[in-house]
Amino acid sequence: MKILRPTLLLDRKKCLRNIQRMADKARHHHLHFRPHFKTHQSAVIGSWFRDYGVDAITVTSCQMANYFADHGWNDITIAMPVNLMEINDIDRLAGQINLNLLVESEETVTYLTKHLRSMTGVFIEIDTGHHRTGVEAKNISLIRKMTGQILNSRQLTFKGLLTHSGQSYLAKDKHEIQQIHYDTISKMVGLKDNLLSLTHDITLSIGDTPCCSIMENFEGIDEIRPGNFVFYDVMQYKLGSCMLEDIAVAMACPVIARYPLRNELVIYGGAVHFSKDFIVMESGEACFGLLVNIKDNHWENNDQSYLSTISQEHGIIKLIGEDIKSYRTGDIIGILPVHSCLTGAAMRSYTTLDGENIHTLLSGK
Amino acid sequence: MKILRPTLLLDRKKCLRNIQRMADKARHHHLHFRPHFKTHQSAVIGSWFRDYGVDAITVTSCQMANYFADHGWNDITIAMPVNLMEINDIDRLAGQINLNLLVESEETVTYLTKHLRSMTGVFIEIDTGHHRTGVEAKNISLIRKMTGQILNSRQLTFKGLLTHSGQSYLAKDKHEIQQIHYDTISKMVGLKDNLLSLTHDITLSIGDTPCCSIMENFEGIDEIRPGNFVFYDVMQYKLGSCMLEDIAVAMACPVIARYPLRNELVIYGGAVHFSKDFIVMESGEACFGLLVNIKDNHWENNDQSYLSTISQEHGIIKLIGEDIKSYRTGDIIGILPVHSCLTGAAMRSYTTLDGENIHTLLSGK
Repeated sequence: MKILRPTLLLDRKKCLRNIQRMADKARHHHLHFRPHFKTHQSAVIGSWFRDYGVDAITVTSCQMANYFADHGWNDITIAMPVNLMEINDIDRLAGQINLNLLVESEETVTYLTKHLRSMTGVFIEIDTGHHRTGVEAKNISLIRKMTGQILNSRQLTFKGLLTHSGQSYLAKDKHEIQQIHYDTISKMVGLKDNLLSLTHDITLSIGDTPCCSIMENFEGIDEIRPGNFVFYDVMQYKLGSCMLEDIAVAMACPVIARYPLRNELVIYGGAVHFSKDFIVMESGEACFGLLVNIKDNHWENNDQSYLSTISQEHGIIKLIGEDIKSYRTGDIIGILPVHSCLTGAAMRSYTTLDGENIHTLLSGK
Repeated sequence: MKILRPTLLLDRKKCLRNIQRMADKARHHHLHFRPHFKTHQSAVIGSWFRDYGVDAITVTSCQMANYFADHGWNDITIAMPVNLMEINDIDRLAGQINLNLLVESEETVTYLTKHLRSMTGVFIEIDTGHHRTGVEAKNISLIRKMTGQILNSRQLTFKGLLTHSGQSYLAKDKHEIQQIHYDTISKMVGLKDNLLSLTHDITLSIGDTPCCSIMENFEGIDEIRPGNFVFYDVMQYKLGSCMLEDIAVAMACPVIARYPLRNELVIYGGAVHFSKDFIVMESGEACFGLLVNIKDNHWENNDQSYLSTISQEHGIIKLIGEDIKSYRTGDIIGILPVHSCLTGAAMRSYTTLDGENIHTLLSGK
């Protein structure tokens, strides 16, 4: 395979292993596995999940739901607060598949009841500490009120409570992730107990990749919705969610300049390819990705040299413990991305190590 | 115009005013104006420049050069170190238009001499302090050697010296931008003087939007290549390159949740729409964009409320000095992006305030 310009490589074996491991874990813990497809956004990669018994998925937008519905998925949760501007599209889709929405205010429940004609599942989104979206877990009166409102709505089916503990991405170590996980479960189970006087059909759904990867106790939880684990990335590696060997995507980029005095390479590959998420390393410096050496059918990890700076189309690789003489202008080098979801969305397609091009919702095929 | 989901609005009047102002400035200072088209990447917006006398442009990649060549541009500088992997494409294009490349090593000059069959212009890229790419300005012996090498090459035409003072983006104030500008000019003019014993045909080309916007003295310089000024953005506003009123693009996003206790709105609009550049405000907090209120045919600036956090598809707006009661779920609000080049590349098309959809290289039409 000849690579001419920035290309997002996908190691299918690693990807399948990541899917299998999470599916096995869900089965082992009697959890319904509803993976988030926002990471890959690809019908082809989505289809790989079917072999592991997956038949229900999570997405972030009505467009993404439509795309996967068009590819045969008929049980989809849109895990964002409802975009009321798309109510007609949502209604149409809810008439075709089992669609679940998230609500986090009485006004939205009222709006949906008034405007939806198709039966639609509804989760109340709970804010268990991320403080992005959802009803605060302590606001029990509102959660009870909304549950009652949904139970009384003819178009809406109350599905349960859903949370995304995104605060786990800021955790300093596994111990902190553990604390976040148990705090999340305790809040969710407490709320369910409280709602049992209103209904017994309550699914508790949680979702972040760090907790789902690291934890082994999910007691009281019914469903998990991790997404990033399908590829993992340097951020997850740093959090302890995965090993370097589990990261299933790498950007392949041409070296366009060498600076022996700085011990730096410049690559054709920048913010429009990687997006701009970074981790802060122990040295206090930013890291936008880790160098890997691309071989014929795999890549070799190297956890020292890294992508230190990116502008629109350029990236600078700082070589650590390596001789710049091993690299020439025109070489293709690999970089494990810091945040594979954003790199996938920026690149819009994948190339497997055996050269197959995999399209996505965003590449329009 | 009904907006349903994140949409990048373009105020054509502001955009034309920005183009006119920079074109007038170039003419006033007797500078060749070779605007960088990486910011908009659009044939339609590119065509607007023709009315201001522009017939030569700058791009970042061979693909971008091909796209604009297909749309009638026949004098193009690819302002990145040459990607040797694309040598065949480059050679083909150089046979069709006046193409200029950047070189920054003897090896690359040798490679081009050996592999190009079409006559190609070449600038030596000079590193005047940005430390991304280019030969260090103090490395006079290498610059002289490469100049001689290019002058002796049958396929290559020596065009001159080119630099991008990207360090201006890190400047704290206009005074520092001024220092960077004069330092750049002094290094470039010094090098030209040195090369006069080899050739008199030496164009000095500089390019960053902060210096080109703010400075009024370009003595000794022949060509400017700013790009971002076509739209400007919050980063440029903070640097003093423009007024808020000059920013010609705004993301329109639906409000999907309201948090009165936090005085925050959550929008459908995140990293995949804005990319993830931010500025650090005086308070020390990150700002990913500034709120504007979208009216029928314009937007009203509001330089206090801002986009404080973004994840993949969500954004959180911190309202400052405003009552959250003025906003409802389902409203469309606007956000001036921090880095319009990256937001344009992420969104891949523009919608003018009168509803026209403008495609780009990246939207594939």
